[in-house]
Amino acid sequence: MVNTPWDDSPKEECGIFGIFAPGLDVARTTYFGLYALQHRGQEGAGIVTYDGRVAHIHKGMGLVAQVFNEENMSHLLGHMAVGHTRYSTTGSNQLRNAQPYLIETLAGPLAIVHNGNLTNAPMLRRNLLQRGVGLSSSSDTEIIVHLLAGSGGSDWQASIRMFMAQAEGAYSLVILTKEAIYGVRDPWGFRPLVLGKLEEGYLLASESCAFSTIGATMVREILPGEIVRIDKQGYEITQGAPAQPRALCTFEHIYFARPDSIIDAKSVHHVRQALGRQLAREAPADADIVVPVPDSGTPHAIGYAQESGLPYTEGLIKNRYIGRTFIQPSDQLRRASVAMKFNPLPANLQGKRVVIVDDSIVRGTTSGPLVQLLREGGATEVHMRVACPPIMFPCFMGVDMATQAELIAAQKNLEGIRSHINADSLAYLSIDGMMQAIGESGGYCNACFTGSYPIPVTLEIQDKEQFEGVFGCG
Amino acid sequence: MVNTPWDDSPKEECGIFGIFAPGLDVARTTYFGLYALQHRGQEGAGIVTYDGRVAHIHKGMGLVAQVFNEENMSHLLGHMAVGHTRYSTTGSNQLRNAQPYLIETLAGPLAIVHNGNLTNAPMLRRNLLQRGVGLSSSSDTEIIVHLLAGSGGSDWQASIRMFMAQAEGAYSLVILTKEAIYGVRDPWGFRPLVLGKLEEGYLLASESCAFSTIGATMVREILPGEIVRIDKQGYEITQGAPAQPRALCTFEHIYFARPDSIIDAKSVHHVRQALGRQLAREAPADADIVVPVPDSGTPHAIGYAQESGLPYTEGLIKNRYIGRTFIQPSDQLRRASVAMKFNPLPANLQGKRVVIVDDSIVRGTTSGPLVQLLREGGATEVHMRVACPPIMFPCFMGVDMATQAELIAAQKNLEGIRSHINADSLAYLSIDGMMQAIGESGGYCNACFTGSYPIPVTLEIQDKEQFEGVFGCG
Amino acid sequence: MVNTPWDDSPKEECGIFGIFAPGLDVARTTYFGLYALQHRGQEGAGIVTYDGRVAHIHKGMGLVAQVFNEENMSHLLGHMAVGHTRYSTTGSNQLRNAQPYLIETLAGPLAIVHNGNLTNAPMLRRNLLQRGVGLSSSSDTEIIVHLLAGSGGSDWQASIRMFMAQAEGAYSLVILTKEAIYGVRDPWGFRPLVLGKLEEGYLLASESCAFSTIGATMVREILPGEIVRIDKQGYEITQGAPAQPRALCTFEHIYFARPDSIIDAKSVHHVRQALGRQLAREAPADADIVVPVPDSGTPHAIGYAQESGLPYTEGLIKNRYIGRTFIQPSDQLRRASVAMKFNPLPANLQGKRVVIVDDSIVRGTTSGPLVQLLREGGATEVHMRVACPPIMFPCFMGVDMATQAELIAAQKNLEGIRSHINADSLAYLSIDGMMQAIGESGGYCNACFTGSYPIPVTLEIQDKEQFEGVFGCG
Amino acid sequence: MVNTPWDDSPKEECGIFGIFAPGLDVARTTYFGLYALQHRGQEGAGIVTYDGRVAHIHKGMGLVAQVFNEENMSHLLGHMAVGHTRYSTTGSNQLRNAQPYLIETLAGPLAIVHNGNLTNAPMLRRNLLQRGVGLSSSSDTEIIVHLLAGSGGSDWQASIRMFMAQAEGAYSLVILTKEAIYGVRDPWGFRPLVLGKLEEGYLLASESCAFSTIGATMVREILPGEIVRIDKQGYEITQGAPAQPRALCTFEHIYFARPDSIIDAKSVHHVRQALGRQLAREAPADADIVVPVPDSGTPHAIGYAQESGLPYTEGLIKNRYIGRTFIQPSDQLRRASVAMKFNPLPANLQGKRVVIVDDSIVRGTTSGPLVQLLREGGATEVHMRVACPPIMFPCFMGVDMATQAELIAAQKNLEGIRSHINADSLAYLSIDGMMQAIGESGGYCNACFTGSYPIPVTLEIQDKEQFEGVFGCG
Repeated sequence: MVNTPWDDSPKEECGIFGIFAPGLDVARTTYFGLYALQHRGQEGAGIVTYDGRVAHIHKGMGLVAQVFNEENMSHLLGHMAVGHTRYSTTGSNQLRNAQPYLIETLAGPLAIVHNGNLTNAPMLRRNLLQRGVGLSSSSDTEIIVHLLAGSGGSDWQASIRMFMAQAEGAYSLVILTKEAIYGVRDPWGFRPLVLGKLEEGYLLASESCAFSTIGATMVREILPGEIVRIDKQGYEITQGAPAQPRALCTFEHIYFARPDSIIDAKSVHHVRQALGRQLAREAPADADIVVPVPDSGTPHAIGYAQESGLPYTEGLIKNRYIGRTFIQPSDQLRRASVAMKFNPLPANLQGKRVVIVDDSIVRGTTSGPLVQLLREGGATEVHMRVACPPIMFPCFMGVDMATQAELIAAQKNLEGIRSHINADSLAYLSIDGMMQAIGESGGYCNACFTGSYPIPVTLEIQDKEQFEGVFGCG
Repeated sequence: MVNTPWDDSPKEECGIFGIFAPGLDVARTTYFGLYALQHRGQEGAGIVTYDGRVAHIHKGMGLVAQVFNEENMSHLLGHMAVGHTRYSTTGSNQLRNAQPYLIETLAGPLAIVHNGNLTNAPMLRRNLLQRGVGLSSSSDTEIIVHLLAGSGGSDWQASIRMFMAQAEGAYSLVILTKEAIYGVRDPWGFRPLVLGKLEEGYLLASESCAFSTIGATMVREILPGEIVRIDKQGYEITQGAPAQPRALCTFEHIYFARPDSIIDAKSVHHVRQALGRQLAREAPADADIVVPVPDSGTPHAIGYAQESGLPYTEGLIKNRYIGRTFIQPSDQLRRASVAMKFNPLPANLQGKRVVIVDDSIVRGTTSGPLVQLLREGGATEVHMRVACPPIMFPCFMGVDMATQAELIAAQKNLEGIRSHINADSLAYLSIDGMMQAIGESGGYCNACFTGSYPIPVTLEIQDKEQFEGVFGCG
Repeated sequence: MVNTPWDDSPKEECGIFGIFAPGLDVARTTYFGLYALQHRGQEGAGIVTYDGRVAHIHKGMGLVAQVFNEENMSHLLGHMAVGHTRYSTTGSNQLRNAQPYLIETLAGPLAIVHNGNLTNAPMLRRNLLQRGVGLSSSSDTEIIVHLLAGSGGSDWQASIRMFMAQAEGAYSLVILTKEAIYGVRDPWGFRPLVLGKLEEGYLLASESCAFSTIGATMVREILPGEIVRIDKQGYEITQGAPAQPRALCTFEHIYFARPDSIIDAKSVHHVRQALGRQLAREAPADADIVVPVPDSGTPHAIGYAQESGLPYTEGLIKNRYIGRTFIQPSDQLRRASVAMKFNPLPANLQGKRVVIVDDSIVRGTTSGPLVQLLREGGATEVHMRVACPPIMFPCFMGVDMATQAELIAAQKNLEGIRSHINADSLAYLSIDGMMQAIGESGGYCNACFTGSYPIPVTLEIQDKEQFEGVFGCG
Repeated sequence: MVNTPWDDSPKEECGIFGIFAPGLDVARTTYFGLYALQHRGQEGAGIVTYDGRVAHIHKGMGLVAQVFNEENMSHLLGHMAVGHTRYSTTGSNQLRNAQPYLIETLAGPLAIVHNGNLTNAPMLRRNLLQRGVGLSSSSDTEIIVHLLAGSGGSDWQASIRMFMAQAEGAYSLVILTKEAIYGVRDPWGFRPLVLGKLEEGYLLASESCAFSTIGATMVREILPGEIVRIDKQGYEITQGAPAQPRALCTFEHIYFARPDSIIDAKSVHHVRQALGRQLAREAPADADIVVPVPDSGTPHAIGYAQESGLPYTEGLIKNRYIGRTFIQPSDQLRRASVAMKFNPLPANLQGKRVVIVDDSIVRGTTSGPLVQLLREGGATEVHMRVACPPIMFPCFMGVDMATQAELIAAQKNLEGIRSHINADSLAYLSIDGMMQAIGESGGYCNACFTGSYPIPVTLEIQDKEQFEGVFGCG
């Protein structure tokens, strides 16, 4: 994939889904749920169903619509299911790391889907290996599966509580067992998890947008440390571990979640417009038009335009069919790597002083070429406005945010970045302004902006690759 | 493909590209050019190159990025190339109809890419068959190839002129021969064709957006009836047939072309905003916000908002990963078929009177569900505004516009449509208003609105399928 | 494909099949017929059916069982069909050259399958190009199709006769038209063609083994110059061109045909045993056992053993799963290239004087390693016996026999070959002995042994690649 | 796969391979070794290599030549490797059960390939589950891997001994660890395992034919209960568990092994000829010719002919390109299901009394149609001779022998079978005669003939499917 220079976004690790609904085609419902969660991961997808006797699994690499077809769906029988859509940091064909992870236990099948990252995975992994459990992948999910299977707890709920007592880090889980679907959210509430309802039963998803797609209604968000159990009696929520000071990932609001989802009781699109409005208040610009970096910067730019009173329009056109290409541009076509994704709209830009609004800057590789495109399109001034604070620290809770050395704001000051991207002015949203727009004074993880991690981060987790190194890919 | 209910757009037949540029990697340049023209056809793609001795071809079904890889590109050697990206009306796997069409002739290789539709194809086809030429496909392109190969003209340019003398209908062509690349636009100028320039040579494309992507500059549009010949001396333009009253397809401006292209010397995005502004003047609405049907209605909605003074915002979120799915929603998930593509944004819609702007309505299958989604999102009133006139007649010049029986505006009057889609009000742009926004009083084909075809349409062409019927697909 | 050193056989160009049988599943019957003809070509396969209204086609690269499945077979409707299985001299993915070749003509669909090679193809090709017919492939079959389509004959039978009047070389054809299936065998009878019968209708195949597989019975062989027409009235045979002195390819008996086929009214297996017996009479060996080069040399070796009175046994084991491998043996594994196909049987060879019988030697690349394997297996003497005369001339009638420079017998005398392959003795069957074993004194093409071609061979056809060169593969 | 009626053979579970050879391309060597072992399993293949730092794996469904290519081989770096070729009793796409099985442990990577079947797998499985180890597949190999990883032994050799102390049943293993390759053969010696030598190191394979293919020489067979450790010092053999009364599977000689392999110090081809000779002594026939059921019955038939003095010839031709076909013969083509694999040779059969020799009869589905084909080919009498005793009991040591209800000899007596297959006479080899031909009076497992299993077989293992049932396939 040649998209490095085109794409300067943080990367989510996954979307998860679960359902218990006798009488419904649960595989099909899960399929459409994953389809709505596709933005959380495009590298692979999988579904496990259970029919009371046999657990059925299908998973593969690629988009949900590429992995499943009527033929393989027809085997996925049952009244309960879990599903997963995956973003992968690692190389090609890592089907071994794909989820759901399904095993047999004395108490029947156990299937898990996971969104997050355990910060004490190396220690948990070592414990398992010392207990003589061999591990066939480098994924946290396999660790969780074996911790649950080997917990010796009196029942699954007890096993989950025992797991929560040892685990540190971000984990939203959906778990399929013989008799129930469980949803689990870590005590910090790093990643979202929502409970919904259909006529035939209950369901869980990373985001509420999945509910709209399949015609379900939202019941409520699962809170930090909670366990929800869904079975034929309905659902029951218990506290699996004491809630810690909440640390929901701010980037769910800024970039990850679909604009039509509800996160922390707030409309994501609404928050994004509010971020743009706050940005306009904090960093006004003497300009003629406001344009977004499409598509992720669009709500923020609309907010900026509303607050500033400047006209909103489009200044960059995005190739809707962009996607994986394995063809390298030749030297003569170097420029094409950004131009393949974006072209300027001279008719809107000619002679204009332009405010361009982006949701975030990670490595800064795209911003410079975009400023250049706007100038080529006729903009006389380009003012870059970023709807979040400078990202200066890597994430260890499940977001692929680049290493510290790659983060441009960790390497350069504001003027250095402005000069690097050749904008006439550059402003980021302040942390306070961001929280104000979100409408909260706390309860969010802002570690990538502040370096203040809600959980102590060991050196070991910072060098996680050593554990992946045991397995090559072939 | 299960997208019928989600997708109510006319369909273009193709994007074409050609280049003569010694010293450049022409296959790679053509690849990136086709990538930029991907919106004109997603069903298949192909490239022919010629190295002075051997013509090389690769074509396949799917997106440009799926058809080509470094391995098959490595065979596409040469200093000249033509390429094609294709929309297909017919079923699966019609690789036989894929372009470019390449044959051997006494005068060397002949490869053709074509955008359009010949209205007298049945007659031309019959003539060829009577001459004893067997035809292996149902495509117009094979007809053109054999007419050129068998014309007996003194040279290719003469053969092209002889072809133009017989052919009726829409045809923008790029032709590869032993010594030159030719570009041809029919005398009515139905479909666009543009000449561009790189340091190493000249090139042709359906739209100028392809030039931006590969760093070329636009020289000028090829005019109706013109032939351009590109060879090692540069380019030369001649009149191949007398220009007819120009009849450029209005839908290039309304929907087909990429917003960043220049068509008929006008920025497409600019025209779309102007259409929206004119629509606001003709059909104002007593409302609170303006939202687009994303993405194709966005520029029109921005224009409507600018003119009306109403705030522009997003009201529907489109699943960016929508694409081919072969999974049918079950009855319980019927609703999902539209919800898979769009979800409402209640935070923006709640309690609001909403103007929703779409570029066009063809069969009307999507509009009703969209209105319904907006109401479910909390809109108190929904006013549908359409940035073109009612489509009442099918197209015979290369656009798949649905049959007359399927066109909702051919079956119902305005109130009937409004009632059918359950909007509080509905208005289309007038033909005069549309032309005024485009800035022209004539020179466009508006047959789909008026039924007044620039070329007489025979019954035979209206039942083209009979000719395709000889070949089944398997 | 890395099989060059393992495989020293001449290569057939194809197997053909046709059927007219209302009420039968003709596609399925053709499938099983092609399956039985698979030994005549493993590179590609195709079927055309016609249902009285629409012609259906499916073809692809690979084995018959790889090209067809229930899904694509389900489209192949009709009461008549032609099919083809293909050996290809050229590179990868040459789907364009695949058969059947299907076109539309004024008189309905025309589909052709062809086994053979036209020696005056360059002239016929030039004539077509001069008539202004463009050719999209390098295959003789496209030439035949266009000659028939453009012949201007009063009906298909007349067109076929006109084609036969111009064509020189080897051609067994099966032709599908609107109302009938035709079978055609060239006036020399180079390649076989047989008529068979089922309850529901008649059928044609390259070899009678296809009839056994599908439960049909043989009616008779089509004779040189004959045309058979099969339609709803039954079949009718006419003389399409005067028969020339018959020149059936001797290699059908020696190697190509399946042992259970009847060729020229003789059992192929029976002829092969007779060749072995004659070889034993002409070239006895003072030895202990007779072993074949499996599998093609087995009948000849059985005959040799019967006549010589020496015990027959196996001395070399062939890997049954040999097939295409794209992995190159490293230098350290050089030896593997033959050892991957054959291993010796020391228990049978130890201390024995061995006669090894092969059907033919083409380039001589396998014989040396096989002798070496036998010695490594413990043979004290190795006497190579070859059941045909030395091959000294290339074939221009549709067999890929290697070029003259590659033919070992064209480069070395008997002692030179013996020394090259390091056998203790070497003997070939004489031409007279071969004909005696076949039971004929004439009527066969022995040009590869004698250089006396039944049809004058021009320089042009000897350099056929120049015509293929116009099209590269990509 | 539609081959049920064509194929009446027992099925082996796998071929295994391992190598320790610094300086050699071990992946490539393993590839060619697996290629030679392809007859032991055609459903899937896999290789693990280790380069001292990272373990590399590639496995897939299909033939060895289909699973590997230069691209995926290029990742398989290292100086040691294990490989596997697999026959699968279960359905499609069971990639999860594919071998090698690779895990990470505290002591580095652990990869295992396995040929056999553990008769106490259900108990071992239950023990692991009770220890809290979750199992992700239904394979014995995963059990072995976790028993080794969790044994708590002081080193791998100790862990292997602990495993051998608990395991019952058939297991030939090759194990890759950080510092050495281990080979293990169960104390009964059910399945073969051989040690070989190359200049660069030592290697292990199921059969010695793999050594011939890659140019290695045989050192010796691994004996029951032995462990061989191969590392940079060379190899060392120890007794891992006391040898039990040896119980080598007789079917390795009768059918499984490649004829050019050495098993129990005997040439397999030689044993097969001896079985045929003994059969001729025990069950002579008043007949004219001896023909084999090709190819597996060929050596036995040669032996029968030698001893009886009757001429050996071919009577049935096997389609060399038989393979998986997914096309079902229609009712009209019912007969094709056997005819697709075999056709008779009337020229050899006409008017003859025929002895047909097969290696074994399992379910008896093929024998009847073959007798019928011979009669259709003109045989006046057909005498079936089978080179092993009647199979009356299923196998629980890793051979898929059909269930008892399917075994024809468990359901009918000799006359019943003769009548069922419509032969003029039928005879099986006696058990004593079989052992005499093999040259041993004991040391073999003849349980499928006698029902006397070397290891007590529990009901549980007889219903193994219940454990596989937890996982469906999708």
